[in-house]
Amino acid sequence: MFDVIVVGGGPAGISSAIYLKRFKLDVLVLMKDFGALDKTDHIENYYGFPNPVSGRQIVENGLSQASRLGIEIRNEEVLNIDKTELFVIKTNRNEYEAKTVLLATGSSRVNLRIPGFSDFVGKGISYCAICDGFLYRKQTIAILGEGEFMAEELEVLRNFSSDLYVFTNGLPLSVKVEGTKIITDPITGFIGDEVVNTIVTDKASYPVNAVFVAIGTPSATDFALRMGAFVDNNMIAVNDKYMTNIPGLFAAGDCIGGLSQIAKAVADGAEAALAINKYIHSKTS
Amino acid sequence: MFDVIVVGGGPAGISSAIYLKRFKLDVLVLMKDFGALDKTDHIENYYGFPNPVSGRQIVENGLSQASRLGIEIRNEEVLNIDKTELFVIKTNRNEYEAKTVLLATGSSRVNLRIPGFSDFVGKGISYCAICDGFLYRKQTIAILGEGEFMAEELEVLRNFSSDLYVFTNGLPLSVKVEGTKIITDPITGFIGDEVVNTIVTDKASYPVNAVFVAIGTPSATDFALRMGAFVDNNMIAVNDKYMTNIPGLFAAGDCIGGLSQIAKAVADGAEAALAINKYIHSKTS
Repeated sequence: MFDVIVVGGGPAGISSAIYLKRFKLDVLVLMKDFGALDKTDHIENYYGFPNPVSGRQIVENGLSQASRLGIEIRNEEVLNIDKTELFVIKTNRNEYEAKTVLLATGSSRVNLRIPGFSDFVGKGISYCAICDGFLYRKQTIAILGEGEFMAEELEVLRNFSSDLYVFTNGLPLSVKVEGTKIITDPITGFIGDEVVNTIVTDKASYPVNAVFVAIGTPSATDFALRMGAFVDNNMIAVNDKYMTNIPGLFAAGDCIGGLSQIAKAVADGAEAALAINKYIHSKTS
Repeated sequence: MFDVIVVGGGPAGISSAIYLKRFKLDVLVLMKDFGALDKTDHIENYYGFPNPVSGRQIVENGLSQASRLGIEIRNEEVLNIDKTELFVIKTNRNEYEAKTVLLATGSSRVNLRIPGFSDFVGKGISYCAICDGFLYRKQTIAILGEGEFMAEELEVLRNFSSDLYVFTNGLPLSVKVEGTKIITDPITGFIGDEVVNTIVTDKASYPVNAVFVAIGTPSATDFALRMGAFVDNNMIAVNDKYMTNIPGLFAAGDCIGGLSQIAKAVADGAEAALAINKYIHSKTS
């Protein structure tokens, strides 16, 4: 059992882990990739680097720094987080328990650049099966996705309907899925009036009552939503101690909004570590 | 005339200057030394450095980074800042005008480790001649200090009294001072009851009504106080836009309190730059 599991190996997560380790807490960092910084070639405005560095280089530096300080980092994809008395974190390889969780996965929420998509988010297009699935009981539900995250969400949706479509939007299905229609054609549009009512591909049109998005891997906001944490305008809502409305669930970096800058994420991480340390001590003393 | 003069060349000041330059503002950084980081050998918790670095190295990196981005940095000691329509910044070498000022000088306020000193701060011991000098009209006033800052404050005190003592506390006097008694013996204690009433050196005791501290160079808090900015518990009070109660006067980093960490100072700097940019555009549009 860990004191803290940090989800995300970028600036906010690693900065926090470094401080948490200093506080002699048992920390585990789970990360799946290099996030948004992997696509940034030329960073000039993060203090302390005389010459431009790539985002990848900064993230690698951070990982080396953390490893040298004895912080354990595992390359695992977090699929689900449950809060019972402790937090139970399910990854593609393991299941962990922790007293607290810090979400620091950046703002990776999928925003499909397909006509109609953004118009219907919140109007029949949802990011959270647990939150909204019951609204579409016995109706026609589409789920967008191709991997384990989609499969997890699909299991939730099966509770509400058996009229289910999986749309991979042109990607190969990477998990085994049964009992649903599977459409692998690229999606070209979402149509509706008040709410979405049709998915159009390059080959056909499919009437649907709801669309759930579970493309790629879940974002921090997805976890937060599913646990009942407040989300405001796609950002995880935290108080001035970086804690969500769920005791022990913290968030830092891009996923809580504000300036999308390394400087801000790094400071968030440090501040969140202080708050987590205080929180853990308040529970055990 | 500059858009912004940044006082301080540490993490908060330089991080801010980097962003301000990006916003195409005319920025000048004034710095006198490497501040508290110069005494820090081994920094492991600032994100992005795989191996421990010295504070001096980080500050040097920051200065190189800023220079490479075309930011002008001058090694001058700021002695006074006045707000008229613009800000007038007087240094040991020049006088500058600026639309805005960012104070980022760290928390360098002198705290003398002499028995009685901290007991009487606010009780006859003051850091601000302009603020408190009038309270001691025609009384015996001591000023602690040895350089230009002391000489500046002394000129202010001459308006209120001619019974003035300069205590250098064992240091050689580095400026020419006339018409005051000058005591260069080390101070061994401050004595009083409700308020301070005596300065004790290793040779004698001197009855005084007030003690003004102007040792070394002025801190950001000193400037802030003298301009009428609110100070709370020695820290410069700013709003969520990093602005003091004086329009156009901003502050960031250790001098506004909070976590004394590079991470926090760097993020402060970035956030303050955004706020300053908005402020300047709101004034010129």
